[in-house]
Amino acid sequence: MRENLPDGALLTDPDLTAGYKQDWARDPDAVTPLAVVRATSTADVQTVLRWASEHGVPVVPRGAGSGLSGGATAVAGGVVVTTERMRAIEVDPVTRTAVVQPGLLNTEVKKAVAEHGLWYPPDPSSFEICSIGGNAATNAGGLCCVKYGVTTDYVLGLEVVLADGTAVRLGGPRLKDVAGLSLTKLFVGSEGTLGIITEITLRLIPAQPPQATVVASFSSIEDAAGAILEITRSLRPSMLEFMDRVAINAVEDEMKMGLDRDAEALLVARSDAPGAFAAQEATTMADVFTAHDATEVFSTDDADEGEAFCAARRFAIPAVELKGSLLLEDVGVPLPQLAALVTGIAEIAKTRDVMVSVIAHAGDGNTHPLIVYNADDPDMTERANLAFGEIMDLAIALGGTITGEHGVGRLKKAWLPDYVGEDVMALTRKIKDALDPQGILNPGAVL
Amino acid sequence: MRENLPDGALLTDPDLTAGYKQDWARDPDAVTPLAVVRATSTADVQTVLRWASEHGVPVVPRGAGSGLSGGATAVAGGVVVTTERMRAIEVDPVTRTAVVQPGLLNTEVKKAVAEHGLWYPPDPSSFEICSIGGNAATNAGGLCCVKYGVTTDYVLGLEVVLADGTAVRLGGPRLKDVAGLSLTKLFVGSEGTLGIITEITLRLIPAQPPQATVVASFSSIEDAAGAILEITRSLRPSMLEFMDRVAINAVEDEMKMGLDRDAEALLVARSDAPGAFAAQEATTMADVFTAHDATEVFSTDDADEGEAFCAARRFAIPAVELKGSLLLEDVGVPLPQLAALVTGIAEIAKTRDVMVSVIAHAGDGNTHPLIVYNADDPDMTERANLAFGEIMDLAIALGGTITGEHGVGRLKKAWLPDYVGEDVMALTRKIKDALDPQGILNPGAVL
Ligand SMILES: Cc1cc2nc3c(=O)[nH]c(=O)nc-3n(C[C@H](O)[C@H](O)[C@H](O)COP(=O)(O)OP(=O)(O)OC[C@H]3O[C@@H](n4cnc5c(N)ncnc54)[C@H](O)[C@@H]3O)c2cc1C
Ligand SMILES: Cc1cc2nc3c(=O)[nH]c(=O)nc-3n(C[C@H](O)[C@H](O)[C@H](O)COP(=O)(O)OP(=O)(O)OC[C@H]3O[C@@H](n4cnc5c(N)ncnc54)[C@H](O)[C@@H]3O)c2cc1C
Repeated sequence: MRENLPDGALLTDPDLTAGYKQDWARDPDAVTPLAVVRATSTADVQTVLRWASEHGVPVVPRGAGSGLSGGATAVAGGVVVTTERMRAIEVDPVTRTAVVQPGLLNTEVKKAVAEHGLWYPPDPSSFEICSIGGNAATNAGGLCCVKYGVTTDYVLGLEVVLADGTAVRLGGPRLKDVAGLSLTKLFVGSEGTLGIITEITLRLIPAQPPQATVVASFSSIEDAAGAILEITRSLRPSMLEFMDRVAINAVEDEMKMGLDRDAEALLVARSDAPGAFAAQEATTMADVFTAHDATEVFSTDDADEGEAFCAARRFAIPAVELKGSLLLEDVGVPLPQLAALVTGIAEIAKTRDVMVSVIAHAGDGNTHPLIVYNADDPDMTERANLAFGEIMDLAIALGGTITGEHGVGRLKKAWLPDYVGEDVMALTRKIKDALDPQGILNPGAVL
Repeated sequence: MRENLPDGALLTDPDLTAGYKQDWARDPDAVTPLAVVRATSTADVQTVLRWASEHGVPVVPRGAGSGLSGGATAVAGGVVVTTERMRAIEVDPVTRTAVVQPGLLNTEVKKAVAEHGLWYPPDPSSFEICSIGGNAATNAGGLCCVKYGVTTDYVLGLEVVLADGTAVRLGGPRLKDVAGLSLTKLFVGSEGTLGIITEITLRLIPAQPPQATVVASFSSIEDAAGAILEITRSLRPSMLEFMDRVAINAVEDEMKMGLDRDAEALLVARSDAPGAFAAQEATTMADVFTAHDATEVFSTDDADEGEAFCAARRFAIPAVELKGSLLLEDVGVPLPQLAALVTGIAEIAKTRDVMVSVIAHAGDGNTHPLIVYNADDPDMTERANLAFGEIMDLAIALGGTITGEHGVGRLKKAWLPDYVGEDVMALTRKIKDALDPQGILNPGAVL
């Protein structure tokens, strides 16, 4: 394999490869990989997969390693293929599309298209540290997807290297194309289990209009949940985010922006309706918050001020992580079940005697309960793990999903059969076996 | 099988089954099916597929039969399963979702959700005569998808009966769900080749604001194409449709609405920007048309007047069909190639001495060249067929697709390998074989 790769692409020195052992989920089962390939081209990826399929060696695709479900955890005797060096982008303002290599960071994609007055909406909180290839592989969500949809809604085409090293082009820069099966969409969200994405054609839209922002504090979760429901029923906010008391305080500890430390819930809502309608929609949302007994409501159409609140919300995960080790959930429920979910989580936290902070992309019912524990305390670690499973069980019982945007990876795969059922698992396995008969692509993830 | 189906569900009388021989494409190879099952429930569909897989009998799924690519053409010795009796709908205004059985017509879905102040955007021109199940199976497009996307963007979940009769639930009423492979999206657009859709969970959005409409005539296709490019580069029209001279005249013959019979191109554009912005965006579009030498520009924010122009555009296919037999294309190109496509089509029409009228969902580069010929003239029929293939070859050469929204069905499958290439065909076949090893589901379609 080495002779077919560019100089410096293949790393086998354990000091270097150890850095590719884990993603952000810090899977305790991760091992240092046999080798890491820093691919520079589709051809490099093909070289690895041809070699790997010939020798039956597992391959773990890796973007920027910001994943939260252990999808990029290295496996014993396996090769990690990282896309960090595949960073080209070409923007076509006339067709409003961009052709991107997978290693470019989400924020870099946003910046490159903004130079043409265009916008790539999907905005995971991790946008500064995650790759666009990882976003496509996990079908990443984010803050604006309550109005603008998720990654798959912006992927028009892919180049994918299959298990045997064949490179295929699926879709392309055509806004509508129904020729053959929807294979592009099948690969989006496949978490590296069906192929390695080497190029992505993205649909772009005109730059987002300026946003107006409303922030509200509540003394009860139920009040906040009621306000969320009323807003999503009648309006189309460009963001509707939730933080609970633990998260508010964790963020305030670091950012000192004067958040109400006594509040049980903080909502951050935005409107990007055109012109004066943004302020108008913001006022309507502020009125809804007031009607649902918000203790404090603050509105602004100043861009920097609005951005500060979003940054606070985006900082919630790292801020809570400063309090201890984290088990990060990603459960989603139909919106009317949001309050029941949050209440149920509080009960689980109490029973298991662990701290659970809830933050949420509230507008689409996708929550991130963060289980905080002391990893040096084996008993507490066990209780945290029990809570982790129980929260997913609760979500399933409420008609919800075990993962709204982070993916199944390795950390949630034990719950996937409970959620989708045996028939869907069998269907999934049929597709996996058809496309990767040796099972070399990201073995142990999802399935 | 009969004993497990409700009374009247199974039709074998050729007088009755003959009515299920063809879809709107009037495939000349269609035969009267062995039997037709008018399923009333998921269980009925399971009954048929269990029986069919046991006996190796082909099954052709059928919605309302408005398909334009022969996807629902009955096959020899096969059973047609029609969903026309599966017509339930449940709308949940709180989560803005609807759970629909496949046989309900698109227009009925729109009406049912409108009662709750909600909107299901996808609007194929055939919305009054096509089923929502057929829409999902073909990933139907329409007029507003230039701004609002296509069917797959609104499908959150499906119930599907697989080849062996197993019913699976994929996705559901959750706005974000990445647990497992994106199977929902794989079944959308699979044209009945992977399973029969028995229930659909749709995402809805708030009612569309009132639209302003602009209609413009041009004395050259190039002028119209230039105007289209300038609009799609900078604005987000809620509709941007094109008719050529033949279509204008065919529509005018029937509807007598005073369209300019001498124009080479007519564009119908709409804006649904909120409040006064609709009129403003319409004015901007009118200015673009004028700047691109439109010979006539007419703007209105009267809903009925605007709707009349849309109805005229929607009526274009039936109107042209009154002039002779039709071969209906559905080629799409990246927008900058639109003029080249239309010019190239005119050359093909000239060389093959057949009439070709072009209508288009111009805003997303999806055109419907309509080849008009006399089916009683074998020589002309052959020339029409040659033109049919040449137009697809041309689209491929221009970086376009052989089908933007109608699907491959039986009529376009000979061109699919040319378009997607052998590797993608092989990938497609692997999935088909994994899910339908006996090949009983819609055999002869797509693959
Ligand atoms: C603080 C923080 C906040 C976050 N917030 C969000 C959020 O709001 N929304 C959200 O959706 N996620 C969020 N995430 C999770 C994470 O950023 C996303 O899952 C992201 O899409 C992962 O991208 P990555 O490049 O880091 O991928 P990695 O972590 O490297 O990999 C993720 C998965 O994709 C696969 N993969 C990566 N690249 C490819 C490729 N080219 N081809 C095939 N498979 C590939 C890997 O095998 C793995 O299974 C957050 C993470 C952090 C740390
Ligand atoms: C005048 C006219 C204008 C049109 N305009 C448009 C347009 O603007 N945009 C557009 O996209 N289409 C358009 N069409 C084409 C057609 O209406 C669409 O393809 C529509 O989605 C077909 O729906 P149907 O219920 O009639 O399906 P059918 O014609 O019955 O079937 C279409 C395909 O879907 C499969 N199928 C149907 N139901 C199911 C099911 N429940 N499960 C699995 N497979 C199933 C069939 O096997 C077949 O392959 C137009 C057609 C006409 C006649």
